[in-house]
Amino acid sequence: MAAAAAEDGQWVLMATGRSPTNIAVIKYWGKRDEALILPVNDSVSVTLDPDHLSATTTVAVSPSFSSDRMWLNGKEISLSGGRFQSCLREIRKRACDFEDEKKGIKIKKEDWEKLHVHIASYKNFPTAAGLASSAAGFACLVFTLGKLMNVKEDYGELSSIARQGSGSACRSIYGGFVKWCMGKKDDGSDSIAVQLADEAHWKDLVIIIAVVSSKQKETSSTSGMRDSVETSPLLQYRAQTVVPSRVLKMEEAIKNRDFELFAKLTCADSNQFHAVCLDTSPPIFYMNDTSHRIISLVEKWNHLEGCPQVAYTFDAGPNAVLIARNRKTAALLLQKLLYYFPPQDKDLSSYLVGDKSILSDAGLHSLEDVEALPAPPEMKIHDQKFKGDVSYFICSRLGVGINVVADESQALLDSVTGLPKVVCF
Amino acid sequence: MAAAAAEDGQWVLMATGRSPTNIAVIKYWGKRDEALILPVNDSVSVTLDPDHLSATTTVAVSPSFSSDRMWLNGKEISLSGGRFQSCLREIRKRACDFEDEKKGIKIKKEDWEKLHVHIASYKNFPTAAGLASSAAGFACLVFTLGKLMNVKEDYGELSSIARQGSGSACRSIYGGFVKWCMGKKDDGSDSIAVQLADEAHWKDLVIIIAVVSSKQKETSSTSGMRDSVETSPLLQYRAQTVVPSRVLKMEEAIKNRDFELFAKLTCADSNQFHAVCLDTSPPIFYMNDTSHRIISLVEKWNHLEGCPQVAYTFDAGPNAVLIARNRKTAALLLQKLLYYFPPQDKDLSSYLVGDKSILSDAGLHSLEDVEALPAPPEMKIHDQKFKGDVSYFICSRLGVGINVVADESQALLDSVTGLPKVVCF
Repeated sequence: MAAAAAEDGQWVLMATGRSPTNIAVIKYWGKRDEALILPVNDSVSVTLDPDHLSATTTVAVSPSFSSDRMWLNGKEISLSGGRFQSCLREIRKRACDFEDEKKGIKIKKEDWEKLHVHIASYKNFPTAAGLASSAAGFACLVFTLGKLMNVKEDYGELSSIARQGSGSACRSIYGGFVKWCMGKKDDGSDSIAVQLADEAHWKDLVIIIAVVSSKQKETSSTSGMRDSVETSPLLQYRAQTVVPSRVLKMEEAIKNRDFELFAKLTCADSNQFHAVCLDTSPPIFYMNDTSHRIISLVEKWNHLEGCPQVAYTFDAGPNAVLIARNRKTAALLLQKLLYYFPPQDKDLSSYLVGDKSILSDAGLHSLEDVEALPAPPEMKIHDQKFKGDVSYFICSRLGVGINVVADESQALLDSVTGLPKVVCF
Repeated sequence: MAAAAAEDGQWVLMATGRSPTNIAVIKYWGKRDEALILPVNDSVSVTLDPDHLSATTTVAVSPSFSSDRMWLNGKEISLSGGRFQSCLREIRKRACDFEDEKKGIKIKKEDWEKLHVHIASYKNFPTAAGLASSAAGFACLVFTLGKLMNVKEDYGELSSIARQGSGSACRSIYGGFVKWCMGKKDDGSDSIAVQLADEAHWKDLVIIIAVVSSKQKETSSTSGMRDSVETSPLLQYRAQTVVPSRVLKMEEAIKNRDFELFAKLTCADSNQFHAVCLDTSPPIFYMNDTSHRIISLVEKWNHLEGCPQVAYTFDAGPNAVLIARNRKTAALLLQKLLYYFPPQDKDLSSYLVGDKSILSDAGLHSLEDVEALPAPPEMKIHDQKFKGDVSYFICSRLGVGINVVADESQALLDSVTGLPKVVCF
């Protein structure tokens, strides 16, 4: 926590945190309570390495601040939305006495309500890419506000508050494998995230994300899942009958590092989530022809190998999140993907971001190497290529959960003015 | 029935029939018995005008034939498939005494088994277009063989035999609106088609089919529905819980010519069938981005109008079958479709086939008229066009069921040789 005397003799108290994104392998789709964001079924996710995909947030209070304000990637945005207000209210409610004798700051529990906050958040990946950016953002906001206001609640309770910002945010609190328990209570207090295993439990897994070019305006997940709950005859059956047994099996698969079962469940549940979207009226299409081609490639390869090499999962957009059983498989996968989806007007190092070392593993050092790739043998018929249909790839791995950023130089707000630092994104 | 003395003094006895295709508005997807082709749920279809989409079949017997033979569109094909054999066996079993005194032909019930058949079939639309060509083909084969062999069974029983060739063939026996009752018996004898209303009952409806260009090899419906039955957790729930009430509502909608209800059920059931395909492992994608765009266009237009103008339904392929509430609506629909999907390297009269008079209703007399079409107002964002993504359109209407072709000059087999006439397709 950083505190600094402001120019007029007043102080600015700050905290900074960093939160990963997560991707569900058993999907959350449908709320039983819109206001509290309570889901119709449990879900399970993997947390992605925050070095590649994360939100960093600095929150500050000062008697000199005249209103609550927020900046996202340097641009001021409104805090008036109900979800921001829910998170702010729930954290302020739990704030505790704070004292920094050295700097002469003393904040009583009841004083927090009167202090305005400044929030600056930065995401190291495109917000529009449909990669759970709101999950990382709300998790980070809640956690960092909690640190600043000396909130004593444990991670479970914090996850329940983050959930009220964006449902899947609750799963970004932890690293590794995380389960969001739907809970039973009406007030949502038992609808919290729990860690199933940390990121060190299954280190072999490699994640490759294909960010798919799309010209379509997508249905937001909030309105999409509301429409599904109201109109899909299949959604409740999925939530009540299919998902509970899948969650149990998924926990087993994770515990035993059983990739075959893990992949089977992950792919089936992604497909069933999109099936429910299609069963919605009017139907929701998140996947496009490129998404279908990637699925087809993976399915054919898995079939040829006799057991799954790669699992795929798609959220509320056309991007493919591919989980390879190990690094060797990931390198082979990348070769196949780049064969079909070579870059258009991009060099290799901007076409694959994140853990770029996978390129060497795949023997790809230049665009010439990509052009020389052989056709994947499992795709017998279609030797067509689809240049430009993927915007770029991200190579990542499982990662840690939310964390305090202790290095004060990383704060996004100026410790004297409490305003965003001028940075170039 | 035509009979002619063959050159060597023997005779050839022939019959010709014509069968429409049908398109399901409550879908058949999944068998409870693979061999007898018994479905997991009832289905409902509309019969399309055979002038636009039909199969014509001539069957012949003669003591001079040395084996069963078949020609499809002039090319000889094998009759060894189990489904052909089932239909032949079931009809032969029911053959009756036949006598044509004038021509001196007398065939006893037990003699039919010894006589070989020649079959020639012709479809007036592309087989590969995914427009239920096997339904029309098997319905026609069974009905015409039945005529030839003096089978006394009623249409219901004939539909049950056609069903063993291709499930949906049973629905092509009747015109107008047809229900295939799944039946309960193990031997399938009660799994038959019944007519809900004839084609004159609801004359306003206009059908426009968009034959969508596709580069993907599609999963056959036979193997697709087998995979769905084996792997989709949602299929049985759909069959047992969702479809029964939808069929009842659909019968009401048809009876009352309630287009709003008809359209709502038709679209929802098409989407749910494709949802079950997506819930299959590996997932089956029959619709592509073009299919999605057509759905989006119809949904937005229906939404803007406040009540449905057009219903859409998709079978095991990307083609859209659009049912407009009346001719005026169909003309407007055609304008919207041609705005987004103008022809590529085709003149207007080969781009819209079937009932071409709809072009005048839509004020479209030339490609210049198509180019001058205004953007549909309901599509606010995407003014992109997709030239070449639709191969062609067919405009049609509801039509009659299967029929004898009395005009002997229309027969596809030569009345003397019993071999296909030489015709240019």
